Amino acid sequence: MTDTQGEFELIDWIQQRTPAHAQVPIGIGDDAALLKFNRNGESLVTVDMLLEGVHFTLDTATPFQIGWKSLGVNLSDIAAMGGRAVAAVVSIALPRGRAWELAQGIQEGIDALARQFDVCIAGGDTNTWNGPLVISITALGEPLGNGPIRRGGAQPGDWILVTGNLGGSIAGKHLNFIPRLEEARLLQEHVALHAMIDISDGLAADLHHILDESHVGARIFAAQVPISSAAQAATDGRSPLAHALGDGEDFELLMTLSPADAQSLLANPIFSTHLAHIGEIVAGKTAELIEADGCSTPLLATGWRHSF
Amino acid sequence: MTDTQGEFELIDWIQQRTPAHAQVPIGIGDDAALLKFNRNGESLVTVDMLLEGVHFTLDTATPFQIGWKSLGVNLSDIAAMGGRAVAAVVSIALPRGRAWELAQGIQEGIDALARQFDVCIAGGDTNTWNGPLVISITALGEPLGNGPIRRGGAQPGDWILVTGNLGGSIAGKHLNFIPRLEEARLLQEHVALHAMIDISDGLAADLHHILDESHVGARIFAAQVPISSAAQAATDGRSPLAHALGDGEDFELLMTLSPADAQSLLANPIFSTHLAHIGEIVAGKTAELIEADGCSTPLLATGWRHSF
Repeated sequence: MTDTQGEFELIDWIQQRTPAHAQVPIGIGDDAALLKFNRNGESLVTVDMLLEGVHFTLDTATPFQIGWKSLGVNLSDIAAMGGRAVAAVVSIALPRGRAWELAQGIQEGIDALARQFDVCIAGGDTNTWNGPLVISITALGEPLGNGPIRRGGAQPGDWILVTGNLGGSIAGKHLNFIPRLEEARLLQEHVALHAMIDISDGLAADLHHILDESHVGARIFAAQVPISSAAQAATDGRSPLAHALGDGEDFELLMTLSPADAQSLLANPIFSTHLAHIGEIVAGKTAELIEADGCSTPLLATGWRHSF
Repeated sequence: MTDTQGEFELIDWIQQRTPAHAQVPIGIGDDAALLKFNRNGESLVTVDMLLEGVHFTLDTATPFQIGWKSLGVNLSDIAAMGGRAVAAVVSIALPRGRAWELAQGIQEGIDALARQFDVCIAGGDTNTWNGPLVISITALGEPLGNGPIRRGGAQPGDWILVTGNLGGSIAGKHLNFIPRLEEARLLQEHVALHAMIDISDGLAADLHHILDESHVGARIFAAQVPISSAAQAATDGRSPLAHALGDGEDFELLMTLSPADAQSLLANPIFSTHLAHIGEIVAGKTAELIEADGCSTPLLATGWRHSF
């Protein structure tokens, strides 16, 4: 709020670039935005804040990528609930001196992803300061199909499926991933998901979130975990499997559902994104990794750490 | 995301302190929150980001006050739309070393205000970093009565009313104001508001927002502008009236409505908060300040600047 003229210009510029949206009769330009929701007035809402030096650096990510990622992480959360994204609001602190250049690139990145999924940027708060770049996005969505899919619905006997290939996201995918909204929509249409989460902390850590909330255990078959080419190419001494289990920011969907529904999806794919059967939910509270030789080891909730 | 253990503890702590809310079947603890809205599924949403060194300093504001203010500015925006606040989500970047102490105080400040207006803190994203304190809140609400009150509805002949007393907020009010949600609710019940805004940039600047959006002009009667005791006590050489017109962060409601509705409110108060008739909307595009001697001068949209 210290560079008022510049901020108003920025907001005007953003407003001009924001297309009209039938579900947002009042968007940028008033005290608050008005959202109309289609289905019984239920709204999903999620927020993520990205910090320069923590979640990205300006040396290794373009402003466009930062904008894309900052919306993408939120859309991934809406997808993880089995929802459809409707709108988002953006607050941002721009480093003085580079504010205009950064804001333009970030807006373009946000806009590109928003258009892809028909998401309305319904409002924002733009600031300049002497600190690092900060961007916080709140996304709003609405539930689809069977309603929101929570972490706590996994049942013993469920199969565990995951989209995409895992690990090594830091090599690039974390800046240009496609949130799995379309896959979530199709899954909601075709099967009864029991539990779902997006992989942000890493497969092992996020699986543990499901297990903890559902009060169940799991067996993961090491040979069936889909490993990304980035994880296979890693040269840091950790195995590709360790990357696939432990790396964060894959932004893939990890879900549990009945064996019958899972087999149906695997036999008759409903989308082109790779879908892998990586394990099963069991009674109890332990998570095991079953290796190719049949040996089992505890699967710990090893998280991930970015290191720039 | 670099201090994972501490963040999970913080989130748990916040979750434990967050009461259940009938309109939020899914709150903190899943990928996204689910909000149920009562009235035709319409949701108001607004976001504001507060930055250390820009909107507050840790020398002059307590963490409790920062938390209170960060929610308050958003609730003031919901009030300005004539809405009821339902929920909010909070993203925060905490300076490493003071993270826990700051987070506790901020949560307490947010919680105190949220409880006062039955607002559910429905989610959040907590981070620690080596930068200054950043807090961004998105508030969600629902329209009341006649639906959302916008900036663009002022009509020539309308009376201009304002709640409270204006100016000198920097002396303290900007950290402990009560957002005018209750007044907004009662106004929506009793009269047909034409336009409304909350005073964040200053009476003159925010009046100009209404005039610009409504394509009208205004006459403001200097002698009728309610001046706060803080503005009267200011010793910086600017007059109390200049403070009342130009200072920001009053977080009062500035509204226009028919003379009949305005007279009814003034004759039969519907709340104890002071309500003043400060001017009228006119055709044209000019804003004039009518001084006590009858002379008129242009009323410029002089904004405000915090200077710590």
